Amino acid sequence: MNKIPVSVLGATGAVGQRFVEMLVDHPYFEIVSLTGSERSAGKQYGQACRWVLSGSVPEQVREMEIQPTSTNLPGKVAFSALPAPIAREWEPKLAEVGYAVCSNASALRQTPGVPLLIPEINYDHLSMIPLQHSELGWKGLAVTSPNCTTNGIAMTLKPLDDAFGVEAVFVSTMQAISGAGYPGLASLDIQDNVIPFINGEEEKIQTETNLLLGKMKDGRRVNAQIQISAHANRVAVLDGHTMALSVKFRHKPSVDDAIHVLENFRGLAEVQQMPTAPQQPILVRRDPDRPQPRRDRDAGNGMSISVGRIRPCTLFDLRMVSVVHNTVRGAAGGSVLNAELLYARGFLAE
Amino acid sequence: MNKIPVSVLGATGAVGQRFVEMLVDHPYFEIVSLTGSERSAGKQYGQACRWVLSGSVPEQVREMEIQPTSTNLPGKVAFSALPAPIAREWEPKLAEVGYAVCSNASALRQTPGVPLLIPEINYDHLSMIPLQHSELGWKGLAVTSPNCTTNGIAMTLKPLDDAFGVEAVFVSTMQAISGAGYPGLASLDIQDNVIPFINGEEEKIQTETNLLLGKMKDGRRVNAQIQISAHANRVAVLDGHTMALSVKFRHKPSVDDAIHVLENFRGLAEVQQMPTAPQQPILVRRDPDRPQPRRDRDAGNGMSISVGRIRPCTLFDLRMVSVVHNTVRGAAGGSVLNAELLYARGFLAE
Amino acid sequence: MNKIPVSVLGATGAVGQRFVEMLVDHPYFEIVSLTGSERSAGKQYGQACRWVLSGSVPEQVREMEIQPTSTNLPGKVAFSALPAPIAREWEPKLAEVGYAVCSNASALRQTPGVPLLIPEINYDHLSMIPLQHSELGWKGLAVTSPNCTTNGIAMTLKPLDDAFGVEAVFVSTMQAISGAGYPGLASLDIQDNVIPFINGEEEKIQTETNLLLGKMKDGRRVNAQIQISAHANRVAVLDGHTMALSVKFRHKPSVDDAIHVLENFRGLAEVQQMPTAPQQPILVRRDPDRPQPRRDRDAGNGMSISVGRIRPCTLFDLRMVSVVHNTVRGAAGGSVLNAELLYARGFLAE
Amino acid sequence: MNKIPVSVLGATGAVGQRFVEMLVDHPYFEIVSLTGSERSAGKQYGQACRWVLSGSVPEQVREMEIQPTSTNLPGKVAFSALPAPIAREWEPKLAEVGYAVCSNASALRQTPGVPLLIPEINYDHLSMIPLQHSELGWKGLAVTSPNCTTNGIAMTLKPLDDAFGVEAVFVSTMQAISGAGYPGLASLDIQDNVIPFINGEEEKIQTETNLLLGKMKDGRRVNAQIQISAHANRVAVLDGHTMALSVKFRHKPSVDDAIHVLENFRGLAEVQQMPTAPQQPILVRRDPDRPQPRRDRDAGNGMSISVGRIRPCTLFDLRMVSVVHNTVRGAAGGSVLNAELLYARGFLAE
Repeated sequence: MNKIPVSVLGATGAVGQRFVEMLVDHPYFEIVSLTGSERSAGKQYGQACRWVLSGSVPEQVREMEIQPTSTNLPGKVAFSALPAPIAREWEPKLAEVGYAVCSNASALRQTPGVPLLIPEINYDHLSMIPLQHSELGWKGLAVTSPNCTTNGIAMTLKPLDDAFGVEAVFVSTMQAISGAGYPGLASLDIQDNVIPFINGEEEKIQTETNLLLGKMKDGRRVNAQIQISAHANRVAVLDGHTMALSVKFRHKPSVDDAIHVLENFRGLAEVQQMPTAPQQPILVRRDPDRPQPRRDRDAGNGMSISVGRIRPCTLFDLRMVSVVHNTVRGAAGGSVLNAELLYARGFLAE
Repeated sequence: MNKIPVSVLGATGAVGQRFVEMLVDHPYFEIVSLTGSERSAGKQYGQACRWVLSGSVPEQVREMEIQPTSTNLPGKVAFSALPAPIAREWEPKLAEVGYAVCSNASALRQTPGVPLLIPEINYDHLSMIPLQHSELGWKGLAVTSPNCTTNGIAMTLKPLDDAFGVEAVFVSTMQAISGAGYPGLASLDIQDNVIPFINGEEEKIQTETNLLLGKMKDGRRVNAQIQISAHANRVAVLDGHTMALSVKFRHKPSVDDAIHVLENFRGLAEVQQMPTAPQQPILVRRDPDRPQPRRDRDAGNGMSISVGRIRPCTLFDLRMVSVVHNTVRGAAGGSVLNAELLYARGFLAE
Repeated sequence: MNKIPVSVLGATGAVGQRFVEMLVDHPYFEIVSLTGSERSAGKQYGQACRWVLSGSVPEQVREMEIQPTSTNLPGKVAFSALPAPIAREWEPKLAEVGYAVCSNASALRQTPGVPLLIPEINYDHLSMIPLQHSELGWKGLAVTSPNCTTNGIAMTLKPLDDAFGVEAVFVSTMQAISGAGYPGLASLDIQDNVIPFINGEEEKIQTETNLLLGKMKDGRRVNAQIQISAHANRVAVLDGHTMALSVKFRHKPSVDDAIHVLENFRGLAEVQQMPTAPQQPILVRRDPDRPQPRRDRDAGNGMSISVGRIRPCTLFDLRMVSVVHNTVRGAAGGSVLNAELLYARGFLAE
Repeated sequence: MNKIPVSVLGATGAVGQRFVEMLVDHPYFEIVSLTGSERSAGKQYGQACRWVLSGSVPEQVREMEIQPTSTNLPGKVAFSALPAPIAREWEPKLAEVGYAVCSNASALRQTPGVPLLIPEINYDHLSMIPLQHSELGWKGLAVTSPNCTTNGIAMTLKPLDDAFGVEAVFVSTMQAISGAGYPGLASLDIQDNVIPFINGEEEKIQTETNLLLGKMKDGRRVNAQIQISAHANRVAVLDGHTMALSVKFRHKPSVDDAIHVLENFRGLAEVQQMPTAPQQPILVRRDPDRPQPRRDRDAGNGMSISVGRIRPCTLFDLRMVSVVHNTVRGAAGGSVLNAELLYARGFLAE
């Protein structure tokens, strides 16, 4: 099979690097272009990029010349790890002229018609895509993946919401430093410390969870109405966000009921067959002190979320803890999975 | 003035060492005896003790011979950092025969007549002490200091409860490794990690907060009835517990009202004069990203708690973040302050 | 092909776990028995073992019952991660009655006739094995892998020694916490700290390097005579030992000569074909700030060492930095590779 | 006594903050001016400065307006924490027009006539100062404090050099992140890692040690001729540089001789009386695993260095380990002590 040529926008940043790592040997996609800032454009990727992941810049892209982001990129698929303001400028332009934009940026997450997508939990939101043509006038299309923390929260809540109806959620996060990009947090700020503030994060959690758990009606998304109070904190962990949750349901489940529902969640069979999809999107841990970010972030190659400590709540119904790999499932991996779903559904055909 | 001779029970552990550090130059008290396990007894303190604090074993006690815990200790005041089962055995015995026991252990925290005490917030609970004589038959007495995390929570809530009536609290903690004692957590467990479980901690927070905020009636404590749901987590921080709180009030305050009440809290004037008491028990931080454990744990020599990020809550009324130094205010320092209050009130007189 | 049945001795410890991880899907070997201390024996491995690696106890061994170490183990190959005193007792007994012992313990490292082995650099030391029969009276045999740090030092020096003759070495190490086993270092000791002392480590580096670089003569090993001064330090890194080296040669090479020799080192072709062998045992890094333990420990699946910052020395001839994955190449992986060489050479045939 | 008015140049950076912390309550000096970059100038110090130390910006300077660095600063003493290129521009100008510049920057460290000064070990280098007038034409003067690592090395070597003659030194450092300033190292680079490279550091160690241990002859410094090979590494420690040293002497001392000389070192009696001077500039630790940066950096309020693990070297004569607080003794504290010596010697009189 001929691979589909793709670009990675904002390829030198921390999330851009994850895109490159996940796409260099991808069975469907082939990187043909990497974009970067003015400062990087014209340089070889291996030179311009301070590789923050394990090992080194992959050989296949080491000498690829970084392009400025433009509407002249080869191929018709663009994975975006652009910084927010740049994304706001370029993502609509690219979608307008015909690219399929799979974005991890926040720019288009709330744009009507643009799915905020996690294939296992709301693949049906793809049916909004025609609105991008009819209402936004785009020749191409865009799908977005949610904020890294919200990803783990929404995946945890979805099967529970379907079974028992989620009404309200308290969540306190302990987020990894890689979530802040590179250079991101100064070591002098986070070493031996907790920073109980992440700009805009609590709002994103509160908003995006309701987008992700929204239901489609007449071709449009009706957002969910879960009340959420979030406390966002940064801790000295490299990768893997941890969330402590208290959840209130319409129909209160027992601990065993909740475990049963989470353990048996698989998502759409079609999604399970996709190359980046994990065998199980949600893994339930029964050890009393799991999940833990260092030990559970790599479950399912970083694409499974781990849920544990499911126990009664003295105020709401249940307490639990989730861990999501923030730069894999919660960022680049999520967008790659989105692209695989677009491919499976024929959105990327010529 | 002649100093009052005191013993430190369980002096070789992490909290025992803090007692030693805080008592070697104390204006009222003089260490005359240090107790330890069978394995340590008979050895010099400087030999038997693996000093985990900064610097070295203080010169004054370096060659003091460790005693077994017994009812033959010199003096009549005993600071206890005993492990729970040993405390359960020895603390009542010592109180029975006439010692004034100032304990940081959990053994007697729920014993009727024994105050769970934070001088700034519930000094009036001292009026329970006569019950120790009349109902327990003790010649001496005991006061206890609360669980380290609960200390910070109760101090944060007290002025708010007095002003606005606290009804319910969600709290998610990020606790320092020193809270687990020495050797405590294996570095292989906590490095680059979060452990979302601390055995018994959530229950202690839920119970002890209501003891601390209880009101005295007819010489007995009537516990408060605040509903609390706690999520306890361990993070890679040396000292300083961080708590993210959502609070529901009977009379909803504005953010400014809450700040005003917290900033103006001073506790009893008599307590403010005590040697270990901080100028302000509660410091309000207005920077958006404070308090932080590394930067705020040493406020007021580790005896002030810091509260910040006071903001509306989307589910309850207010969210906020508190930091308490877990081995100073939350352990040894709390018990020393308790002893200073006993001294001021004449309980330690011959 | 029928896999060879093997036992892992001391399977519940940190290195034992790495053995399990590397052997559960091994093409030649199949775990049929796991041994543990009296406390663990009789329990299921998944129950008795506190898994310190990523993920969980592999399914294949989760319910395997832990045996006491004995000479009645099934199969004839035993991988040993026994603690030193237990290894001293059992490894010779097992070799005596006919087992092939592939040990990571220090017990037999200096026993005459027992190769201290790194397949890429001194496979010819296998020719000592007949002495184990003739002089020790063993029906079986034993090979040992070196101390984790020494492994990286000897691999770095070997090609340079062959080409230029190594005379003297200063080495200062920065070693990972996993090298101390589990529970190993208390987090209160190593967090935000360096511990400039590892018991016995400097002596092992000085001795074992000369065993590894020894030459065979008349069927016996003649130890090398390199003068080594080692400074061993523990740092807050999970996995991966870093060594700063100053090396004096008989024939001083240029920096380029040294890089050339290191980059072209491959070891015996036969070894390169073995399943656990990396493509390149030594990787030369040219970036000014590499190798780094977190980014380079996993090179070649943890079996390649990385060498960089090769530059002139103002006192000796060259300075350089090496990184070795201490629990893979430097422990379990090294012993598995040794067993693969034994297999290839026919030592494990019935 | 009227305090001497002083300026802190580059006051918003990490070292500038230490200057502020050490000078706000200084018995001789009073901060009257703080300078910063164009971006900061005109703002209040408490606003412009991201405080990286414990606690908050001291009250006394919180509302002080930041000035641009200029030759119109009030008072005649300037403490400099300027970045290297700015220091090269402004320090000579200020000295030229009459200021006494006490600098922690590297700009003037090698300028003939400018002492590189550690009061306890080379106060006699002050006798170079007249050359600044006669040869550089300055109305004022400048003294510099050395690179933070070199500080600890030179202090360790000085008493040994005086007694036994130091000929050659291998040193491998493990340096704290605060040495890189703020924001300095990205947490993604140093968490769970070692970076075996610090730009320019090895050269500074090799050069500045010989300046510090130089001897005065005919009013000029004759540099020492110690051969030094340095390996500089960054580790995940907040404060406190650790150095592993191998030292070769003209007259080989026993371990006990070396300990005796180090333990009895006091420096000039006049220096011992100065407010910032520690009781003992060098503390010898006899525990097998000390000094450690976290536990020993604060010795003597961060002004004492700690030396331990003094033992034979298999290549040179002795091995040992030193710890220095890099931002106190090794930076701001060193310069404040230099200023106190200038004051004591009358250089700061009108």
